[in-house]
Amino acid sequence: MKVLGIDTSSKVAAVAIMDEDKLIGEYIINSNKSHSEKLMPIIQEIFSQCNLTVDDIDLVAVCIGPGSFTGLRIGVATAKSIAHSKQIPIVCVNSLETLAFNMNLSKGIICPIIDAQRNDVYTSKYTWENNSLLCIEDISVKNIDVLIDQIKDRYEQIIVVGDAVDIHKEKLESLNNIYISPNSHKVPRASSVCQIALEKYKNNIIDDYMTANPLYIRKSQAEVEYEERQRRMGENG
Amino acid sequence: MKVLGIDTSSKVAAVAIMDEDKLIGEYIINSNKSHSEKLMPIIQEIFSQCNLTVDDIDLVAVCIGPGSFTGLRIGVATAKSIAHSKQIPIVCVNSLETLAFNMNLSKGIICPIIDAQRNDVYTSKYTWENNSLLCIEDISVKNIDVLIDQIKDRYEQIIVVGDAVDIHKEKLESLNNIYISPNSHKVPRASSVCQIALEKYKNNIIDDYMTANPLYIRKSQAEVEYEERQRRMGENG
Repeated sequence: MKVLGIDTSSKVAAVAIMDEDKLIGEYIINSNKSHSEKLMPIIQEIFSQCNLTVDDIDLVAVCIGPGSFTGLRIGVATAKSIAHSKQIPIVCVNSLETLAFNMNLSKGIICPIIDAQRNDVYTSKYTWENNSLLCIEDISVKNIDVLIDQIKDRYEQIIVVGDAVDIHKEKLESLNNIYISPNSHKVPRASSVCQIALEKYKNNIIDDYMTANPLYIRKSQAEVEYEERQRRMGENG
Repeated sequence: MKVLGIDTSSKVAAVAIMDEDKLIGEYIINSNKSHSEKLMPIIQEIFSQCNLTVDDIDLVAVCIGPGSFTGLRIGVATAKSIAHSKQIPIVCVNSLETLAFNMNLSKGIICPIIDAQRNDVYTSKYTWENNSLLCIEDISVKNIDVLIDQIKDRYEQIIVVGDAVDIHKEKLESLNNIYISPNSHKVPRASSVCQIALEKYKNNIIDDYMTANPLYIRKSQAEVEYEERQRRMGENG
């Protein structure tokens, strides 16, 4: 079974092709180009280098977020269109478990943090227990200062990973119990998306092009403003 | 400082571009094409996607082995030619520390194993101590059965990583204390090569296009046979 993995939850565009036996290819681009410019060319390129076509793919694994709203829409729409045209299933993977999986078998509590703007981060907590990745705190949006207050002195070692690490690096580095993951492990990896998806597929956690949807966690700024306008119009009407 | 990382120590061709702040791009191809077909096209491709050229690179990081003799020659020759033409330094990284770095901060003893043919593996042992990767056993060539005898029951947990894992999977899986790294972490990553190289560069462990050389560990079959022929000719002469 060949899986195409896609992650566009941050500025990074990542694609990978994997089967149960090996990683066939992975391509990660962290440039300033938009996902609409990057994603399709790197999918086409990796297929060509691996002597494969989309017809060889049995499953699409996609990172559904939380993260960049526009990025997620592009990644999920691409996954849906491939799954629809080839009539193959989709497995949805969240961005925080993807980042935690990068830190395979690490000692300590893994705390992925993804930029949610205005000093907020999408976060959750994971640990490796009996060689399996265990989610010990559900995904939420937190102000970075609130999160730092919660984690300082509480755990022996906290591993932070994700794009918000660089934004809040100074604050994070002030903690004694922090380990900042290396840049090689800090970006979402499509190979991690594939690995998690293969496990979910085995456990029958499967979506399709109709049911796969982005996991936004919170409303976009546009939606918040729209609702606020509607509320005011109601008050004044 | 921008680093171009190259790893061709196994069947996998891996290139990455990284600076101190982030992974800019990484491209890994694990197809059956030869390195001479794969390597230059993927270097050219990643530069193009990242809007960079070889003129933007300040340092070449290359995996010098041990591993596939032909692969190493292609990777090291490519690194030398870029370093020579652009008059930039090279940092040499070995293939076992690269694989160990993939398993960042993992708990247990990391035992990378790379195929050395005829049931032999190139191996060494690493552990993460005080958040640094520590080599606790030097690189050597071992028969897989000898290695398995040495590691069984000796450590609480042994993490195996590298291309020889799949070749000897059945034997390895028979051990109670083994953890086979996921396929996403089992391949040499050029981003790991870059990370280790940046650290070595800081510590002034630097080569150039004259001094960088493959680390073969043992003689090639052709050399062994040549010496054997020479010895016999001496005996008969």
